[in-house]
Amino acid sequence: MARTLKLTVTYDGTRFVGWQRQAEGVSIQGLLEDALARFEGAPVAVHGAGRTDAGVHALGQVASVQITSAHPTDAVARGLNASLPQDVRVTDVQEAAVDFHARFSARSKTYRYLVRNASFVSPFERAYVWHVPEALDLDAMRTAARALVGTHDFAAFRSAGSDTKETIRTISQSDIFRHAGRAGPGPPGEPATARPTSEDDATLLAYEVSGNGFLRHMVRAITGTLVEIGRGRRPAASMASLLAGGSRAQAGATAPPQGLFLVRVDYD
Amino acid sequence: MARTLKLTVTYDGTRFVGWQRQAEGVSIQGLLEDALARFEGAPVAVHGAGRTDAGVHALGQVASVQITSAHPTDAVARGLNASLPQDVRVTDVQEAAVDFHARFSARSKTYRYLVRNASFVSPFERAYVWHVPEALDLDAMRTAARALVGTHDFAAFRSAGSDTKETIRTISQSDIFRHAGRAGPGPPGEPATARPTSEDDATLLAYEVSGNGFLRHMVRAITGTLVEIGRGRRPAASMASLLAGGSRAQAGATAPPQGLFLVRVDYD
Repeated sequence: MARTLKLTVTYDGTRFVGWQRQAEGVSIQGLLEDALARFEGAPVAVHGAGRTDAGVHALGQVASVQITSAHPTDAVARGLNASLPQDVRVTDVQEAAVDFHARFSARSKTYRYLVRNASFVSPFERAYVWHVPEALDLDAMRTAARALVGTHDFAAFRSAGSDTKETIRTISQSDIFRHAGRAGPGPPGEPATARPTSEDDATLLAYEVSGNGFLRHMVRAITGTLVEIGRGRRPAASMASLLAGGSRAQAGATAPPQGLFLVRVDYD
Repeated sequence: MARTLKLTVTYDGTRFVGWQRQAEGVSIQGLLEDALARFEGAPVAVHGAGRTDAGVHALGQVASVQITSAHPTDAVARGLNASLPQDVRVTDVQEAAVDFHARFSARSKTYRYLVRNASFVSPFERAYVWHVPEALDLDAMRTAARALVGTHDFAAFRSAGSDTKETIRTISQSDIFRHAGRAGPGPPGEPATARPTSEDDATLLAYEVSGNGFLRHMVRAITGTLVEIGRGRRPAASMASLLAGGSRAQAGATAPPQGLFLVRVDYD
């Protein structure tokens, strides 16, 4: 009898061509489909909540699958993790309603983009942050970030060459936080690296955004624009102008992929 | 005129043959010597405080160098970081006494070994922890760890085949901490991965040890022994027996390199 399972998946996107299976290269979807096919003894289609791009990470990507095998959910998790490479882990497996679909059933997705605003980046976080050494006006960035909350036309932040027609999205949270912490290893309460004492220790910026949907490269285009605002290259008010009818060429450059994490996907 | 500089260096040891320059492979010492030679226009010898092995990381390795160029210390740091790969960063450069030697002047070194005691390891910490999924008796491990404090013969924890004659060392701190935190990326205050709720969240164990010197593989042999004690395969009291005249064969297996960090080196 067919069951629908909800998988929660975390991955380090560094070496992948992205979530989606492609003709060339290794994808997370492809690895999961191959691992599930071995488990099921037949091809299995894996549907992800968000198609993260090459180099983008996930802390809590969600995928839905239909299988017939009767294994309990924890055996499915163990079995998948035993055959997946170490840079992809299934952190949770739950029974779901038969019509559950990771993408179409999603109510909200949350992304986080990490920026290290310091003279250098720790070796341990080099694959997980965008290095921006220049001084940043956090207040201006925060004002601009918060202007995104609500229902807007995000055409100015869509991927160049994208053929998406519907560009209206609703953003429920959009804010920037400054942290004294690190993106690298080591128990909390102690910095990962001995930083020069002349340097402000709170140099990790996290842009967090939640919404009902995101266009391709949208979070990275927003982050690139926010950083240009922080550098003083454009006013904070330019964010509202871009939402009111700007073109992609008027927004900022797309931030690099390695700072971006799909944090979680929420369902009703 | 010759100056002696004290460099503080952090590196992700994953791809290196270790600190020390070798005939084959990439070493941190070799990278620093090559970068300094370009800076100085002549060969420069770099002396490190501790010879970390292949795959072992450093948060605060210290190195001493003698150069003649008159560049200010911050220019030296910037120049070195501009030519070093991203997995090695010079975090600080200071003028030092002419006779300062990173190894011979060191009073104490501190190492940390991270163990993830959970059913799976986050992709973001896979290169920075030892995965031990079995239940561990932390009290027994702590008792055994603390028995190392003082001046002892560590012959039982020296690398097999090592020709070191002097095996007496003084340990000033040796303890185990359990942390709710993570070794992976993401701002503090939120777990890096959505872990199953059935799992104790405080599953990151950090063994920290400080002393006036360490034999080759000593911290990893101690950690391997501590984990065997934690698993109940040997009593906590066996640590004292090993110090009182045990052989390498009687101690535990050497823990894998990727969990080990040289945290800092202290000088008078």
